Amino acid sequence: MTSNELLVSTVVNAWKLVVSRIDQAVASCGDSDFQREVAPGKNRIFYLLGHLTAVHDRLFPLLRVGARLHPDFDEIFLANPDRTSPDTVSPADLKKAWSEVNGKLTAAFENLRPEEWLERHNDVSPEDFAKEPLRNRLAVLLSRTSHASFHGGQLALVKK
Amino acid sequence: MTSNELLVSTVVNAWKLVVSRIDQAVASCGDSDFQREVAPGKNRIFYLLGHLTAVHDRLFPLLRVGARLHPDFDEIFLANPDRTSPDTVSPADLKKAWSEVNGKLTAAFENLRPEEWLERHNDVSPEDFAKEPLRNRLAVLLSRTSHASFHGGQLALVKK
Repeated sequence: MTSNELLVSTVVNAWKLVVSRIDQAVASCGDSDFQREVAPGKNRIFYLLGHLTAVHDRLFPLLRVGARLHPDFDEIFLANPDRTSPDTVSPADLKKAWSEVNGKLTAAFENLRPEEWLERHNDVSPEDFAKEPLRNRLAVLLSRTSHASFHGGQLALVKK
Repeated sequence: MTSNELLVSTVVNAWKLVVSRIDQAVASCGDSDFQREVAPGKNRIFYLLGHLTAVHDRLFPLLRVGARLHPDFDEIFLANPDRTSPDTVSPADLKKAWSEVNGKLTAAFENLRPEEWLERHNDVSPEDFAKEPLRNRLAVLLSRTSHASFHGGQLALVKK
């Protein structure tokens, strides 16, 4: 591997590790656990997992690595707070969506070359990117890794 | 900047962003807030900030970027759980320690060259590192960034 490739692999590995820890937390949840709140009055596990799935699903267009799998999740898990609408997704379907989104994303990440990671992400214009080259795909991956870990810390509070 | 340098700067930026968010959460805490738990029966803000400071302080030897500032924190914030000993550090001193440790670390991080980030960290032997080149300094930085974000998510639950 070139040093560029080593640097990128190290970052992709960090993403995989954070996702795998949430996988483990989710795997230990039965359907009724999904109704538990991470702290009194805060989000339920159900909502947090949907929120993470929606945020990760949005990476497909943002990083130009494919089409979204669950655009319908935005309304439930991003536009609206927890408990403002009935749960229209079952825990089993939510687990499956989480797993499929990350599986497909991770496969795409492992195929991106270092120079592609340094290209702009889709929310920054070519003009702005010329001035701010750190607004690249890799920055988005790092941001979402931190975001997943942020909510992973909350999920850990209800660990059984 | 070379592409190697851009990759590394993007990662160091992600670290700085996560630390700055915890800085903001901590800045909004008065002394009495430090006694609040992130969830019933869970760690107090005081303990979490000490824990994060100790973990970051250990990065100096682990990444070979300097001497530790607060080795005394290990006993209080790593070896023992919260509320098992009296608080011997004041909130003001804890805030100062957190800030100093991260300031000195970040300055050191900004001076490391990409090839230095790809060198082994101090907890892996040269023999093992030859077989597993992803156990490098950058992997540690990413791990600690995720760790800080993990606890940042818990601190956010008690945001005022």
